[in-house]
Amino acid sequence: MNSLEDSLIQKIEKTTKSGKPKGSLRLGLGDDAALWAPRLGYEIVLTCDWFLEGTHFLRNTRPDSVGWKCLARALSDVAAMGGAPKCFLLSLALPRSYTGRWLGQFLAGLRRASRRFDCQLVGGDTTRRDRILINVMVLGEVRAGEALLRSGAKAGDLIFVSGRLGEAECGWSSLLRGRNASLRNSRSVRKHLYPDPRLALGQWLAKNRIAASMMDLSDGLSSDLPRLCAASGVGALIDSGKIPSAKPAESRHLTAANRLALALNGGDDYELLFTVRPGEARRVPPRFQGIPLTCIGEVTRKRLVQVVQANGQKKSLIPGGWDPFRG
Amino acid sequence: MNSLEDSLIQKIEKTTKSGKPKGSLRLGLGDDAALWAPRLGYEIVLTCDWFLEGTHFLRNTRPDSVGWKCLARALSDVAAMGGAPKCFLLSLALPRSYTGRWLGQFLAGLRRASRRFDCQLVGGDTTRRDRILINVMVLGEVRAGEALLRSGAKAGDLIFVSGRLGEAECGWSSLLRGRNASLRNSRSVRKHLYPDPRLALGQWLAKNRIAASMMDLSDGLSSDLPRLCAASGVGALIDSGKIPSAKPAESRHLTAANRLALALNGGDDYELLFTVRPGEARRVPPRFQGIPLTCIGEVTRKRLVQVVQANGQKKSLIPGGWDPFRG
Repeated sequence: MNSLEDSLIQKIEKTTKSGKPKGSLRLGLGDDAALWAPRLGYEIVLTCDWFLEGTHFLRNTRPDSVGWKCLARALSDVAAMGGAPKCFLLSLALPRSYTGRWLGQFLAGLRRASRRFDCQLVGGDTTRRDRILINVMVLGEVRAGEALLRSGAKAGDLIFVSGRLGEAECGWSSLLRGRNASLRNSRSVRKHLYPDPRLALGQWLAKNRIAASMMDLSDGLSSDLPRLCAASGVGALIDSGKIPSAKPAESRHLTAANRLALALNGGDDYELLFTVRPGEARRVPPRFQGIPLTCIGEVTRKRLVQVVQANGQKKSLIPGGWDPFRG
Repeated sequence: MNSLEDSLIQKIEKTTKSGKPKGSLRLGLGDDAALWAPRLGYEIVLTCDWFLEGTHFLRNTRPDSVGWKCLARALSDVAAMGGAPKCFLLSLALPRSYTGRWLGQFLAGLRRASRRFDCQLVGGDTTRRDRILINVMVLGEVRAGEALLRSGAKAGDLIFVSGRLGEAECGWSSLLRGRNASLRNSRSVRKHLYPDPRLALGQWLAKNRIAASMMDLSDGLSSDLPRLCAASGVGALIDSGKIPSAKPAESRHLTAANRLALALNGGDDYELLFTVRPGEARRVPPRFQGIPLTCIGEVTRKRLVQVVQANGQKKSLIPGGWDPFRG
């Protein structure tokens, strides 16, 4: 006597449930809401993210990548606070014909990410729709007082980024042009399809009180750095020569100038942008768990966000990253 | 230097922000995530709900009703656990032309609901889309161990519903046919446009340990009662003559039989369905804060969900409520 919606929910439960609620989870899937028992001395980190067919991915994107990425990108916001993810809600709207094989592969990717990042599916909402619509809400935890905010930067702080910027968008352009199998499995294509939110790095920076402010790079450095500066009431001066871009081997189809443009404007990297007081800078290692950490400039009192170009001249950094309302 | 997305977020902040974070809220809008400090001895209630143009509302639905209802219906799930709402995340996708007047009216309705139900906007995500897409995630609190689950019903429990069932759908049909101004302001039309989640009732039933199981009626009794029975591993026998339907004055266009069908199958009522051990039934008043509480039948060991009809015969209750994947 079950409706199709009920059987869809059962399929999701079956593929993702890991037995009895564990840890602080009191009640998971199947009731009106989930129940979570918070830990003493911790604060809760709450965030959500759209992931929409036609806007954030295409109908022919590998379904297991859609499943992985919808969770991974929401987790990047938890990483940006220095938090540890705990559980998530999945809101899913699908065409009826996608409730079979597509859904199975989607859930497989989602389950891989859920296990990898130790974040349990505890609820959500499903409905039918002609396009695939996804919204993921994540609950994480951070020790009270340790969360790293966008608003913590001060003039004189050094500005760091993790990883190489523009890689994910470079991977996306490789996918679009590449019929070459080796290219399709390149590092940048993997980063585009299966991003790896910098959870361990974010937690390490927060716990050891190394960073003063932090955010994740989801829309591109040129869009996100001005946001951090605005939240802190400061400016920034970064050096174009220091910005870590995609390796030439990963981006043979790009000129050096295009590689820099991608590093400034490319979205979807899910790296961390953080500032460090000058006295703490020696505590930042050149790599953290294999991920390069690069100082790209410093925070200024003057509320301008500028780049020093190769010719030594300063130029305003124009937001050229992802903006859904542009164009 | 702000993108349109940033100014949209600022507009949302400006219209809904109520000053500094208050109570347990440590950090609200404007960072990567919100921060919430949980209270000792409480569990967190988590739920989310789609509210999509074309599926749940129409483009010409009053925008302030869309704003009110997207929050109110998510809060109904918190009410169904016996919880108190605390804060919510809003995910909003809009056509560019809707970021002006429509958005203003939408936010006004949302703010009214946010104040009325004491639930603060603390974050979310915005993007552009050709259709209006909304997802609301609510965080609530309930004293540890007091939450009322769907799975708590036992054979012999009496089954109660709050309010009058089918009213919201009756209001919707009035709106569709009515050019009559008095009809457009009728009680059932208001219930359709501005539903009132039964938060106080749910909290009272949980706190005083009166109910044994509970859920909210969002898809219609004939769809939702079987869900409660399945979660509890029981059946139910309800009396068609006892089901409180819309008042005839509110539904002049319906026959008595159609009124009963609406009471069984109409969605969007956001009333509470709960069961009470026989020994506790005398503690249920006939009305709670003006809302009728009606006993409509009892929980059975036999795992069938049946209705006693006017002629005394039993009939299986066929789910005829809202199912997005049907048809």
